Amino acid sequence: MRLGYGEDSHRLIEGKPLYLCGLLIPSPHGALAHSDGDAPLHALTDALLSAFGLGDIGLLFPDTDPKWRGARSEVFLKEALRLVEERGGRLIQVSLAIILDQPKLSPHRQGLQENLSRLLGLPPDRIGLTFKTSEGLAVAHVQARAMVLLEG
Amino acid sequence: MRLGYGEDSHRLIEGKPLYLCGLLIPSPHGALAHSDGDAPLHALTDALLSAFGLGDIGLLFPDTDPKWRGARSEVFLKEALRLVEERGGRLIQVSLAIILDQPKLSPHRQGLQENLSRLLGLPPDRIGLTFKTSEGLAVAHVQARAMVLLEG
Amino acid sequence: MRLGYGEDSHRLIEGKPLYLCGLLIPSPHGALAHSDGDAPLHALTDALLSAFGLGDIGLLFPDTDPKWRGARSEVFLKEALRLVEERGGRLIQVSLAIILDQPKLSPHRQGLQENLSRLLGLPPDRIGLTFKTSEGLAVAHVQARAMVLLEG
Ligand SMILES: [Mg+2]
Ligand SMILES: [Mg+2]
Ligand SMILES: [Mg+2]
Repeated sequence: MRLGYGEDSHRLIEGKPLYLCGLLIPSPHGALAHSDGDAPLHALTDALLSAFGLGDIGLLFPDTDPKWRGARSEVFLKEALRLVEERGGRLIQVSLAIILDQPKLSPHRQGLQENLSRLLGLPPDRIGLTFKTSEGLAVAHVQARAMVLLEG
Repeated sequence: MRLGYGEDSHRLIEGKPLYLCGLLIPSPHGALAHSDGDAPLHALTDALLSAFGLGDIGLLFPDTDPKWRGARSEVFLKEALRLVEERGGRLIQVSLAIILDQPKLSPHRQGLQENLSRLLGLPPDRIGLTFKTSEGLAVAHVQARAMVLLEG
Repeated sequence: MRLGYGEDSHRLIEGKPLYLCGLLIPSPHGALAHSDGDAPLHALTDALLSAFGLGDIGLLFPDTDPKWRGARSEVFLKEALRLVEERGGRLIQVSLAIILDQPKLSPHRQGLQENLSRLLGLPPDRIGLTFKTSEGLAVAHVQARAMVLLEG
């Protein structure tokens, strides 16, 4: 059994697209980032890499490498999954918290969970997804914290 | 085996009661909240729900539903426990961090741990409870982060 | 199986030494702290104690006790390890996130991972280490969040 923890945050900027869990969410603001700024997928990717001591997103997917430049975050997640599976890991569960004040995520819950289910190859009951607001601590940021559980 | 992660934060307001882990803690300030603002119990409730992909507090216990309006947070925790047990889950451990500058929680450690033990049906050695101050990052907030481990 | 979660943060001050994972990292600033302010080791120590319901650093290692005054954080980590092993716990994995804007930690990854491996008695693939910047949320702080997995 292995577990992994990862987190991520991005500053929100007016007029940028907001990607969460691989979906484009209608929003007046989105993440300031080199990549698509998908904080939940970045947190999950770091959690997977961390579970096998493989480093982190910045180490494996530097945006100075043309191979990864401009890549969507699904690509990082898929590669992290491949790396842990190559080492005998099998993802059995994720628990993910997204902290964001606006827009409200509750209308997008089903879509987010289904997309994670598709990306991770897990049934919905193995994908925990909780939404919080920052209560004034990070009004201009999107944050994500992720835990993963793996066999192997 | 399943794990779940949950977190919560509330702004502190002069003159409001401070509920932590189901106990009323003597304090000059307490949580700004619709409910009793018990951040540790909210974090634990979210962690339990997350472990079985059941959503979060906001989804299951909307304060627009008269059934939950004004409910104490123990009620949410108990209902989350019931839902995971209904699905074959058995809680075997929790690890909880409370971040609060004032009042100092160390004098209340035993009471908090005993009340969690009672609420969760776990022996004290299965209830990890750590206290931190915010070091200036959130002087007017109470925050909690919780992990749960379940069989099933 | 047991898990534990711990976190820590310290304010950064010009001219103070920066200790991370037991190593002195070249830096213009370091942690404001009674101890050496090693946030990752403090988070790991709390995670270990939490896994067996043993309290936290403040409870076990008060700086008012001459036994612990001025101790390096390795001492706390080693003592926490000893306490969990005494109770039949065997550490099998850690996942650690360090949040720091400056200096960049990537040049120190190998050294940090090797020192944790030495301190914890774990192979490198069982030591997850991810680095994040605060994205403006905590520019004058070092933060760490740690998860541990144990048998027993
Ligand atoms: Mg990111
Ligand atoms: Mg709450
Ligand atoms: Mg500390």
